[in-house]
Amino acid sequence: MHLQLDNKGPKHEQLARSLRLAIRSGQLLSGSKLPSTRMLSENLGLSRNTVLRAYEQLRIERLGVMREGSGTYVNDVPLSQVPVASPRRVEAQSAFAARLRDLPPITLGGGGAGLRYDLQYGAPLVNTKLVSAWSTALATAAATTSTGYPHPQGLPELREAIARFLATWRGVVADPRDIVVVGGTQQALSLSARVLLDVGAMAAMEDPCYELASHALRAHGADVVGVRTDDEGLVVDELPRQARLVHVTPSHQFPAGLTMSLRRRRQLLRFAEENSSWIFEDDYDGELSYSATPIAALRSLDTGDRVIYVGSFSKMMFPSLRLAYVVCPAGLRKDFIRAKMLEDLGCPAIEQAAMHLLFKRGAFERHLGATVLELRRRRSSLLGGLARHAAGRIEADDSQLGMHVVGWLPGFDAARVDRLVASARLRGLGLHPVHPYYRVPPPRPGLLLGFAGLFPSQIEEATRILGDCLRALP
Amino acid sequence: MHLQLDNKGPKHEQLARSLRLAIRSGQLLSGSKLPSTRMLSENLGLSRNTVLRAYEQLRIERLGVMREGSGTYVNDVPLSQVPVASPRRVEAQSAFAARLRDLPPITLGGGGAGLRYDLQYGAPLVNTKLVSAWSTALATAAATTSTGYPHPQGLPELREAIARFLATWRGVVADPRDIVVVGGTQQALSLSARVLLDVGAMAAMEDPCYELASHALRAHGADVVGVRTDDEGLVVDELPRQARLVHVTPSHQFPAGLTMSLRRRRQLLRFAEENSSWIFEDDYDGELSYSATPIAALRSLDTGDRVIYVGSFSKMMFPSLRLAYVVCPAGLRKDFIRAKMLEDLGCPAIEQAAMHLLFKRGAFERHLGATVLELRRRRSSLLGGLARHAAGRIEADDSQLGMHVVGWLPGFDAARVDRLVASARLRGLGLHPVHPYYRVPPPRPGLLLGFAGLFPSQIEEATRILGDCLRALP
Repeated sequence: MHLQLDNKGPKHEQLARSLRLAIRSGQLLSGSKLPSTRMLSENLGLSRNTVLRAYEQLRIERLGVMREGSGTYVNDVPLSQVPVASPRRVEAQSAFAARLRDLPPITLGGGGAGLRYDLQYGAPLVNTKLVSAWSTALATAAATTSTGYPHPQGLPELREAIARFLATWRGVVADPRDIVVVGGTQQALSLSARVLLDVGAMAAMEDPCYELASHALRAHGADVVGVRTDDEGLVVDELPRQARLVHVTPSHQFPAGLTMSLRRRRQLLRFAEENSSWIFEDDYDGELSYSATPIAALRSLDTGDRVIYVGSFSKMMFPSLRLAYVVCPAGLRKDFIRAKMLEDLGCPAIEQAAMHLLFKRGAFERHLGATVLELRRRRSSLLGGLARHAAGRIEADDSQLGMHVVGWLPGFDAARVDRLVASARLRGLGLHPVHPYYRVPPPRPGLLLGFAGLFPSQIEEATRILGDCLRALP
Repeated sequence: MHLQLDNKGPKHEQLARSLRLAIRSGQLLSGSKLPSTRMLSENLGLSRNTVLRAYEQLRIERLGVMREGSGTYVNDVPLSQVPVASPRRVEAQSAFAARLRDLPPITLGGGGAGLRYDLQYGAPLVNTKLVSAWSTALATAAATTSTGYPHPQGLPELREAIARFLATWRGVVADPRDIVVVGGTQQALSLSARVLLDVGAMAAMEDPCYELASHALRAHGADVVGVRTDDEGLVVDELPRQARLVHVTPSHQFPAGLTMSLRRRRQLLRFAEENSSWIFEDDYDGELSYSATPIAALRSLDTGDRVIYVGSFSKMMFPSLRLAYVVCPAGLRKDFIRAKMLEDLGCPAIEQAAMHLLFKRGAFERHLGATVLELRRRRSSLLGGLARHAAGRIEADDSQLGMHVVGWLPGFDAARVDRLVASARLRGLGLHPVHPYYRVPPPRPGLLLGFAGLFPSQIEEATRILGDCLRALP
């Protein structure tokens, strides 16, 4: 080790400075032992006391750490030098962990690298006005929100704003005391599973369904069964009576895209009352209705208080927000609050306060109105593009909601879909088959076409490529 | 219902405006049915088509909702009119819910209303510089962070910053791939319980311990046993060999305040290796060391990879943040990541990015340095005040860490402590006995004296009142 003193100021400061340089430059590796004070004092012609003082200084700065009876070690670890542990294989330590390990690989969006256009579902509508409004709201909220532990159930003023919003936009009359703010729809489901389902209890899901919801229920230990959907939604007659929890997406079946009929809604609520089952209503995009007469949430018809209603800000704002809310049946309210509290003591307060600010200023509802308009444009581009470039080769559903449509592919089999996806990828277009969402394969293959993340002109171009690929397919 | 048209613009717009006013003023109650179009057209002398258009407008604005075959209803619900459901009693629906209901009432801080001074543990150090730095960082992060789904494990750049921080401040060498960002220490424990403990498995905790940690383990279904602590910390010899998880606070036993000796640390690590148990190291305030030679975390000695290390930003920044991190044993890494993903898909991205900005700019470490200095001042005020005003009546421990000290009360019994707390409350001082944290009552009663939330002058005044109360106590 080569140390050079700079002759400025007291000797022990010179030495400390020189050691700091050596550490920061990587000359002294993290974890390595510094020379003994005796050796260094002899080498540099300094008193031992000077060396001791320099070392003490490094310890105060946490660059050095003293190990009793052993000396002083370099304590700053540049990341490039972190030893890469080769993880010892550890058996699953709990039945839960074993179930986690049994799940197939999980991916969250992504995979679009290198593509010019990706019709990926879940890509958010990029909105610079919203980003700037959110940035301002966060800054204001940070300056004005209590720094103490947040209300585990959610900020009261936000819960009141949500109740008002639900009444106006979703026809749901909710007591703010029954609302629990959670970290996304995923957490709403995890909490519901813990509160409602013992290991081995049956949970029914629509077939097709959202993969991560089914994974969460399976990891919890539920006996997850898929129930067929038809053009009216979940086929309630085929629901097993033992189902303790029924997970549904009535406003906009995910991913198939249709809306549950009024008849089936009533039948489902009757089922839940007769069998003392609970309904988990994932209203993930119910606000994004392009119809002049939007359909109210299932919960609005629920006179028996059997519906756990879940709305999310992730779709309306952006997915990285991780903020959603549960309207609990009144008799389960305390269980949900306690479960949330013991899980994480409540959601971060500043983001809740910022969300409340957006509500208070009317900015959230204005944003929602503008989003609906813009999404309607993008949806028209998609449907128009498909009609222009792929007529007769792809049949788009006619759902009046949300951020995706399903394009069915008559006459295709799964292998042909794979070839289509591969040829589109070669031309820079990301396509996503819908059949992986099904337990029982759908009558015909289809594509899940998300349109929120692309501009209308990009969507037009994407459908043109899709049309070319369809025509070129042998 | 009295509707007055204003004769401005088309008739249907006049009517819609008038209906809007009636709804917003509360004249038309939410949920109430609007008059039939026939009746209204007759009453107001308008064509039915005009009324139909006005009603359609209200529906588009979501002020009205159409129920098929039944008419149009008012859909805006002022909160004062939300019907208060008298919750039907519902039996606990799962064993987890039953355990939740068996827990004693849970409170989170608070209760200090009406007090002049509250020596409450957990009150944060109010720091206007930090609030303003955080507000700026959030605004910047909001403008620059991806709006898509966050990385479930935590933003990679934040995990790298945490790894560097841990090396410097806690002597812990961590691979960023073993770090999982979570929503507070509470979530770290909930995830650990799910990953490591089946229902009925034994979890050992120090006696005394933090109530919400023990509640979370009990709610999970663990067989929670308390193990005695002495002046070296957890008495490892008394740990049952069946303990699958051992929850400890080695840096600063909560709440008793002492630091686990090196001997016991080594003994505990040996215990974990011999019994294939896991150690949950809750290092909740290890950074707040007032000693020139701070003690590294237990994890830094853990050559067998048995320690789940948990650090939190809640104490260093503020509790409403809800951001913490787990360093997982490498063999459990994937389980923790999956468990976090299925719980809530990951922590909010913007706050993680803001935290990373503070690290990058050096602001977090500067803040930490300033916090340590300020807390040391407050701690000196407390210890000095106790010496001046309560010498001989209260014995403060000498921990060199954290945001609280324990003041032991020689010669007191629990009833006398209650009288002390009551008389202090009458004089505007909040005091908090330490015995509720114990399973086996401590040899002598004491007070948990939190000093972070008060200025030195307030602390001086609080100790003066405490001294008066002690002297006046019969």
